[in-house]
Amino acid sequence: MSMSVALMTDKYELTMLDAALAHGSAHRTCVFEVFTRRLPSWRRYGVVAGTGRFLEALNHFHFTKAHIDMLHADGALSDTTLDYLANYRFTGTISGYAEGEIYFPHSPVLTVEGTFAEAVLLETLVLSILNYDSAVASAASRMTAAAHGRPCLEMGSRRAHEEAAVAAARAAIIAGFSGTSNLEAGYRYGVPTIGTSAHAFTLLHDTEEEAFAAQVAALGTGTTLLVDTYDVTQGVTTAIKVAGTSLGAVRLDSGDLGAQAHTVREQLDRLGAHNTTIIVTSDLDEYAIAGLQAAPVDGYGVGTKVVTGSGSATSSMVYKLVARENSAGIMEPVAKASTSKSSIGGRKTGARLLIDNEAREEVVLVGERDATTAWLSTHPDYRPLEHTFVDGGTVDPQWTGREGLDRAVARHAASRAELNPHALRLQSGDLAVDTTMLPVGNL
Amino acid sequence: MSMSVALMTDKYELTMLDAALAHGSAHRTCVFEVFTRRLPSWRRYGVVAGTGRFLEALNHFHFTKAHIDMLHADGALSDTTLDYLANYRFTGTISGYAEGEIYFPHSPVLTVEGTFAEAVLLETLVLSILNYDSAVASAASRMTAAAHGRPCLEMGSRRAHEEAAVAAARAAIIAGFSGTSNLEAGYRYGVPTIGTSAHAFTLLHDTEEEAFAAQVAALGTGTTLLVDTYDVTQGVTTAIKVAGTSLGAVRLDSGDLGAQAHTVREQLDRLGAHNTTIIVTSDLDEYAIAGLQAAPVDGYGVGTKVVTGSGSATSSMVYKLVARENSAGIMEPVAKASTSKSSIGGRKTGARLLIDNEAREEVVLVGERDATTAWLSTHPDYRPLEHTFVDGGTVDPQWTGREGLDRAVARHAASRAELNPHALRLQSGDLAVDTTMLPVGNL
Repeated sequence: MSMSVALMTDKYELTMLDAALAHGSAHRTCVFEVFTRRLPSWRRYGVVAGTGRFLEALNHFHFTKAHIDMLHADGALSDTTLDYLANYRFTGTISGYAEGEIYFPHSPVLTVEGTFAEAVLLETLVLSILNYDSAVASAASRMTAAAHGRPCLEMGSRRAHEEAAVAAARAAIIAGFSGTSNLEAGYRYGVPTIGTSAHAFTLLHDTEEEAFAAQVAALGTGTTLLVDTYDVTQGVTTAIKVAGTSLGAVRLDSGDLGAQAHTVREQLDRLGAHNTTIIVTSDLDEYAIAGLQAAPVDGYGVGTKVVTGSGSATSSMVYKLVARENSAGIMEPVAKASTSKSSIGGRKTGARLLIDNEAREEVVLVGERDATTAWLSTHPDYRPLEHTFVDGGTVDPQWTGREGLDRAVARHAASRAELNPHALRLQSGDLAVDTTMLPVGNL
Repeated sequence: MSMSVALMTDKYELTMLDAALAHGSAHRTCVFEVFTRRLPSWRRYGVVAGTGRFLEALNHFHFTKAHIDMLHADGALSDTTLDYLANYRFTGTISGYAEGEIYFPHSPVLTVEGTFAEAVLLETLVLSILNYDSAVASAASRMTAAAHGRPCLEMGSRRAHEEAAVAAARAAIIAGFSGTSNLEAGYRYGVPTIGTSAHAFTLLHDTEEEAFAAQVAALGTGTTLLVDTYDVTQGVTTAIKVAGTSLGAVRLDSGDLGAQAHTVREQLDRLGAHNTTIIVTSDLDEYAIAGLQAAPVDGYGVGTKVVTGSGSATSSMVYKLVARENSAGIMEPVAKASTSKSSIGGRKTGARLLIDNEAREEVVLVGERDATTAWLSTHPDYRPLEHTFVDGGTVDPQWTGREGLDRAVARHAASRAELNPHALRLQSGDLAVDTTMLPVGNL
């Protein structure tokens, strides 16, 4: 993608910039923080995803001549502001939780530091990416946990905006999915792509047998035949008749999947197709996956529910100013104080207490960077969660691209393995660990 | 956007193509239909959106050399298939419900006719776009209906994937929203953009008064001041002190919005700011909007709930083969027949019975095009719902771009006005009209 993403921004960021430039406050040093006040009530943890995509997008965050012309015609912004935008480049620092990491309410998932002007402009893009990708990864992680090692395959592209579908495939992979049907995700990220045929292919041909024969002739006996277009038992008989006992898999996409899986497994074994596996699809979610664990199922294809975050289509992360230089040039914590949606001022760093490799507490240290670094250096049991992604405006490439994705996959598996096993139960309940806010400095 | 969208496709479409090309069935004429089996249980109608975006994307549906190289390396497809893809261009016909139109379960929202090869490849892109955009428009229409003429403003970009956010803004506009915070939507589609400031702008400054003064100095007294960063009553006092009684608006973003709106209205009037309006935001949905109708509120900013489809983040539209040429070259209806998720074979055309300009019935005519055209010509009370968007592969530009969008906005308003007013109630209940399937031909 070479397209600029700079206008994927709420207009108020530009009008705030305009007013702050005119007033002189635009160049005050600021700390913005991304966090959530809550998880969906039935979740015990969240999964950070999107950080790599955001960092890649940041490299394309510039206002083109056409953008400036459009903003000029709109008339809301001064020439000073338009000049600022035309030359915009983020020169600050961005740090936070690595992609794939577990997070909790109030975890400082991302911290953006720079002038007000340069940092305020990133709000919408940061949140769009982290909120969507983390919603998918958080749902996907519960699915892979429920699957207990059986592969989960992402097939939900048709149930998401076409670009969101690509991001969803990537986020699902981070949370342990084994592959995706989305070819663009394979193209951009090099992740495994899967898929063989739909009911339309069977219906295209005069008979199911003709369709199966055509598929096996082209794709080999290792393919997956979809056996539920007409009658499942007949479909399985025909599949083995056509492909032989080395058929790779059959797929069931309707009906009572658990009961059918037992029947089909018996039928396949009776026919001698002991190595032919059974893949199930059809509106699966984490609960359905858990419910099928006793069935002879070899893989789960998951669609709608993973790309729509299984009941929570977005995360509720916000981007809040938590500290800034005052008019005298002194850094101060700041926070909204009115009736609801209040926030906690000050720069923050997350760390996770591990005892015998099990996560016991999330601590959010509040204070300037030196103070939190000093605290962490004397508390080796706390695993530091803040990493630096962007320094002086330069994106560290280890957090992006295929390398960043591979590391995120490994990190999620490792981070989830630190949780007490009860945190992987699907039932509503307590968060996997509690979070403690701990002031350690002045900011 | 000049980017190709051809890989925003599930892999199985390409493996089906591969098998069908090898078998010879790939060039059979086919009719694929987009429809949904159900609406969310609490909805009485759906709103078609995305058709224009799909048609624009179709013009960019081609496989680049890099795509072909990736598919070749993947190894799943034959050279014949790769050659076919390298030269792919859709040459068939696409017709269906115009954008903005109301739809119901089994309404034939889109019909794609061409060879199996050319039509099967469009499944994922068609569904991704229509399912997401229609989910947003269907939610947004209930919000604008509940607002009874008060403006609804779309502000949900941060709660959706960054590209989905642009599509969401467009879909909300179709359903009657007055503007969007999303600048990219303004840039691409020329829709009105709105927004002035966030809590961060107030917090940036030493005092609220300094922030308001900076904003008014740059953006004028017609701006909207956000008055709930500290104390709302003090905020309103300061706002009028700084901007005078010609202040454009105040925005409330937290707390009990209805009660606050009454208090703030009284305060503004007492201060002489009779023309200063009140905009409310903060997790609004159609029910909250309805609940605020008695409050002195002048506009609703809607975020999360509109971009996530207010409880239904995707539509459940499917893309099904409903008719195709058999091996003898004869067109036949086809349909999946097994345990669940069955469909109704045959080519379909929708029409809506209007009596005294009120919609009374959705009829879905089943049969070849000549038969349905003949039926419609003798039933003038039925408004035909099928329009031709693509003929011989050429997209008719009246359905795309700004013209298509303007027409969709007008069409939605007109189509919704045909519904009996009870269909606009928010409570769960019957569909606005019933749908009748009516065979009129042989296909």
